[in-house]
Amino acid sequence: MNGKLYVIGIGPGDPELLTLKAVRILQRVPTLCVPKGREEGASLALSIVNQAINLEGIDIIEAHFPMRKTRGTGNNNELKEKWSATVEAIASRIEQGTDVAFITLGDPAIYSTYFYLHEMLLERMPELPIEFVPGISSVTATAARAGMSLGLGDEKIAILPATYSGDIRAVLAEFDTVVLMKVHSVLEKILPVLTDLQLEGNCIYVARAGMPDERIIRDIAKMTDNDLNYFSILIIKTRRPHERS
Amino acid sequence: MNGKLYVIGIGPGDPELLTLKAVRILQRVPTLCVPKGREEGASLALSIVNQAINLEGIDIIEAHFPMRKTRGTGNNNELKEKWSATVEAIASRIEQGTDVAFITLGDPAIYSTYFYLHEMLLERMPELPIEFVPGISSVTATAARAGMSLGLGDEKIAILPATYSGDIRAVLAEFDTVVLMKVHSVLEKILPVLTDLQLEGNCIYVARAGMPDERIIRDIAKMTDNDLNYFSILIIKTRRPHERS
Repeated sequence: MNGKLYVIGIGPGDPELLTLKAVRILQRVPTLCVPKGREEGASLALSIVNQAINLEGIDIIEAHFPMRKTRGTGNNNELKEKWSATVEAIASRIEQGTDVAFITLGDPAIYSTYFYLHEMLLERMPELPIEFVPGISSVTATAARAGMSLGLGDEKIAILPATYSGDIRAVLAEFDTVVLMKVHSVLEKILPVLTDLQLEGNCIYVARAGMPDERIIRDIAKMTDNDLNYFSILIIKTRRPHERS
Repeated sequence: MNGKLYVIGIGPGDPELLTLKAVRILQRVPTLCVPKGREEGASLALSIVNQAINLEGIDIIEAHFPMRKTRGTGNNNELKEKWSATVEAIASRIEQGTDVAFITLGDPAIYSTYFYLHEMLLERMPELPIEFVPGISSVTATAARAGMSLGLGDEKIAILPATYSGDIRAVLAEFDTVVLMKVHSVLEKILPVLTDLQLEGNCIYVARAGMPDERIIRDIAKMTDNDLNYFSILIIKTRRPHERS
């Protein structure tokens, strides 16, 4: 009998934001696969789970994901070899009947590194049984910390990664709420646009939502380099209340 | 000492998708406020919570939200009176030192009825202590059930409510993933556009994600009226794999 792969969203950082389902599965799965990138993702993910569950004696597969250049890198053999090794480590355990949980910060569907492996895993093992367990995404955790709605009634929501290269003004014109993910690296480019559109008072910047060192900044003109963080989100409401339908 | 208002996302339907935090708060808060609309929302929300927590003897405030026409209804006195009664019921308990939990399906920030009351509550009680507890939104629960990513790398995500009246073709051209919420009422209008753009094979329709009577449909041309449901989401991936960067 084959084992099963669980892809589990563990939420944004607060271990209390794990779901009952995530805890139940993590309590009994003998192998965890943890993405390990340039940033602190791997140790952070493990420390979140470790605060809710005893991880003593657990088997851990480290999946190496350099956070940049994971796409369009068909010629990067080193990366391919690392991914193949991770795929093999997961698939071989599942073939031996062992369940594996791939843990991912936030939610698996929202910019999770897991999906870089998904197709390779299915190539290696077409009948691989996979169950996705949704998690609290950093997007809604950030809105919760900011005490605001992302969409109400007929409002439209856009979620853009920091690597977004399109026309931000067009998106700000069309959508009621614009969420910029991992915004730290593009903030300098975005701020003048927001000032120009008189939207700088309609923004909220949240770094490390729900973590002990969370930062919430409502006056983004006053931000300093110290406030920048890899786990940062900028929420922009593009209409003032009296403009809303 | 005043009580506190908790606005708690209880997830999409599976009681196991409650967070540890939601359960902890719901186990000790003596009053629940439950939105009650045209649809089954109120009884559904209560039944989800009731599967995880003993609700015997709990004090329940029913908040009446006709699901349509909740905006731009400044002249609707009946609605205003109902909302005022709900605001008064919440505020008076909090002034008496009682904590209140407003429970909402999915996540509070994603089209939750709570925010219709938010400003009225703050007008009535400017110092009202509020804590938002994020929940698993139907958006990521749907992606989990469909086994797909909503955004990876530099992909852009758009979330549109069914009442969306703008140019869907422009959004489909600009975004990599388009999520249509409560799509049942506009599906007839959307299908010909998707066929015209040759995107009908790139869609997945999920009704009642994670509930016992869930429906997942990958061939949307074969949908029948029976598949339509108030709790339905259509996810459209606008690029085929070979078109992705």
